[in-house]
Amino acid sequence: MSEQSLPMVADDRPEGTSRPKDPPNRRAFLLGASSLLGLTAASLLLTPRIGSTQEVPVDPTKVPGALASEYGTRSRFEQSQRLTKPQRSRTPLQDLYGIITPSALHFERHHNGVPLIDPSRHRLLVHGLVEHPMIFTMDELKRFPATSRIAFVECSGNSGKEWKGPKGTTVQEIHGLTSTSEWTGVRLSTVLQAAHLNPQATWMLAEGSDAAAMTRSVPLDRVMDEALLCYAQNGEPIRPEQGYPLRLLLPGWEGNTCIKWLRRLKLVDSPMMTREETSKYTDLMPDGTARQFTFDMEAKSVITNPSGGQQLTEKGFTEIRGLAWSGRGVITKVEVSLDGGKTWNAAELQTPILPKCHTRFRFAWEWNGQEAILQSRCMDETGYLQPTLKQLINVRGTNSYYHNNAIQSWKIDKDGHVHNVQA
Amino acid sequence: MSEQSLPMVADDRPEGTSRPKDPPNRRAFLLGASSLLGLTAASLLLTPRIGSTQEVPVDPTKVPGALASEYGTRSRFEQSQRLTKPQRSRTPLQDLYGIITPSALHFERHHNGVPLIDPSRHRLLVHGLVEHPMIFTMDELKRFPATSRIAFVECSGNSGKEWKGPKGTTVQEIHGLTSTSEWTGVRLSTVLQAAHLNPQATWMLAEGSDAAAMTRSVPLDRVMDEALLCYAQNGEPIRPEQGYPLRLLLPGWEGNTCIKWLRRLKLVDSPMMTREETSKYTDLMPDGTARQFTFDMEAKSVITNPSGGQQLTEKGFTEIRGLAWSGRGVITKVEVSLDGGKTWNAAELQTPILPKCHTRFRFAWEWNGQEAILQSRCMDETGYLQPTLKQLINVRGTNSYYHNNAIQSWKIDKDGHVHNVQA
Repeated sequence: MSEQSLPMVADDRPEGTSRPKDPPNRRAFLLGASSLLGLTAASLLLTPRIGSTQEVPVDPTKVPGALASEYGTRSRFEQSQRLTKPQRSRTPLQDLYGIITPSALHFERHHNGVPLIDPSRHRLLVHGLVEHPMIFTMDELKRFPATSRIAFVECSGNSGKEWKGPKGTTVQEIHGLTSTSEWTGVRLSTVLQAAHLNPQATWMLAEGSDAAAMTRSVPLDRVMDEALLCYAQNGEPIRPEQGYPLRLLLPGWEGNTCIKWLRRLKLVDSPMMTREETSKYTDLMPDGTARQFTFDMEAKSVITNPSGGQQLTEKGFTEIRGLAWSGRGVITKVEVSLDGGKTWNAAELQTPILPKCHTRFRFAWEWNGQEAILQSRCMDETGYLQPTLKQLINVRGTNSYYHNNAIQSWKIDKDGHVHNVQA
Repeated sequence: MSEQSLPMVADDRPEGTSRPKDPPNRRAFLLGASSLLGLTAASLLLTPRIGSTQEVPVDPTKVPGALASEYGTRSRFEQSQRLTKPQRSRTPLQDLYGIITPSALHFERHHNGVPLIDPSRHRLLVHGLVEHPMIFTMDELKRFPATSRIAFVECSGNSGKEWKGPKGTTVQEIHGLTSTSEWTGVRLSTVLQAAHLNPQATWMLAEGSDAAAMTRSVPLDRVMDEALLCYAQNGEPIRPEQGYPLRLLLPGWEGNTCIKWLRRLKLVDSPMMTREETSKYTDLMPDGTARQFTFDMEAKSVITNPSGGQQLTEKGFTEIRGLAWSGRGVITKVEVSLDGGKTWNAAELQTPILPKCHTRFRFAWEWNGQEAILQSRCMDETGYLQPTLKQLINVRGTNSYYHNNAIQSWKIDKDGHVHNVQA
């Protein structure tokens, strides 16, 4: 078939013209040409085995491929992974595309491991200030009217170590406790309506069935509109680390309130002062008092490419890419600075821009081979502008750990190395 | 901790009141109550092993859970899978939630298997009517400005067997060759600009590097605005079955034109009349001529719950759920019929409603235990209304196979069994 014979190719593009529309470099082009033109001679050669028993053919058109499979897996050549500690793992933000986080790479945070739950035995108890205390099976919850939304979940401890200077190396290590999924479930309001909520109920305790029996209390009036009891994530049943078979989702609120492995909702008339809202998940202020019930995750953004630990290999076009999100609603603006915050440039926002959801931003940059300090900052629909760390410390002092949404700075060295600084 | 002692519960809800807000049935409620109340006594018991070496604890709060993992997997209790033949597999639409199809369950269609490709060796050749024939590495393509969009891909052979009467049983078997992902890549227009497109170029041949060397030609003016060269799917590198490391995405066009394992684009001035656009992927009309280059996937919808092969277990509230999509843009309306198309009722559409993307619809239904024939039909932004099979046959005759977007009918028997009929 003549269409398969490869033509002569030539790279007569003048040096330095019309980047970034031109391909990044001449060297790579020539390599590509020699590789493709060598196909005929090399087509019977096989490269070494890589992580599997099947040989990698030099010319895949000459070897019938794998047959269809019941449940697919990623390519053996892809090895991106979460950065794990026993009770948490961090999403590799630098490896993500778009806004959906693959469920397999969604960050984890648990306080006594991921429980193993048989969904046919799982129950949700709704009691306290309701007329009709009730217990639901998973099948019963799934029969209720369902709804879906794409939303981020962020641990309020994300970026926490950076309060006292640049500690982490990579964007994953520093900011990897945030991820986005499409969540599906039943509205909390639907379930509470079934149980006939008592008007005296103003707070709700949610309890997980993990070995930490995680509990948090939340004010009903603030969660009623949007809270979901989720049983699905990214099109399939929710993953074990995310609360299988059932989790509470409070869009835009600190992840810890979104109780996983949810087994109980108690309607009450005051906060229950659990461990996770007294000794933990509070913010010690400069005057010695502590902020409590700081539920909302404020607007935050971070450049994921280029980011800490990466290396720019050559001058010229690089698309600066990152994520922005706000627990208060939609992101209305993201700006990028190339000079450590002296001047700012509008970034492009990828549509759809959804409330309480990661938003992908992009900014076309020509790296001139000189030092640079890259930053991003975002604004949400309330008009709130992401602060610098200095601005945050002015208000909150240096005893805080949770709720650090300060601007991240990445320094580009002359040799192209990217590292974490505070500018 | 007193919060963990379970209260007495009672189901004093009057029979038959205020469904669907009430829980589905009293029997399941009582089962739930007895199960939870028995926890203390049973907490040391373990259920039998299920598909893994770890025992399933009766009370997961009593056993520390699994530690964090680098790349997560679904629960062992979840077994939904694609329905496979050697060169295709079908998405279990009846098991999906929301609009994102899990990548592991995205339908497959290949003509000589899924090739095993080392991305570091993969190249894209762009040649023909361009000033500068070029070869790109994957790294070079990823350096170009990127874009993402959530879009469906549907095989034009989807639902094809139904032309001559109801053949399939389940929605997966009949309609499972459609799936939705968030796709990320570089715009075709960006790459062609780099190669300096010649004004004489009006068509483009795209070629895959699978063992079928799949080739299709498409008219440039119709694809230039939206075509993407995709390297990512649902946040991570594109899956092998979907074209790893690179596929063409022509949003809204028949899946076969979205060449996977893309290795070559040749710019030409007329269609190339490949096998897949002459002997295949054409529509034989009643007058003996054949429609060719029927690229657009017309508006289509299907009820996924309840659907063929399922069983309604009791009367009362059931949420009718399904998917609608159009290759022409956004879905503007979905209607549901409970009487085989005599009367129609507006369904609720889940936001965001995106162009050329699956749209989830829902309709609240009270099954009265009698026979019913459920249908859905959708309209897209062009005003096109999804046709009945009879209307389709009036225009296209009975020799067609591809591009069957007729209304699907599901008959509910008195015993609750759901099966495929043509009404």
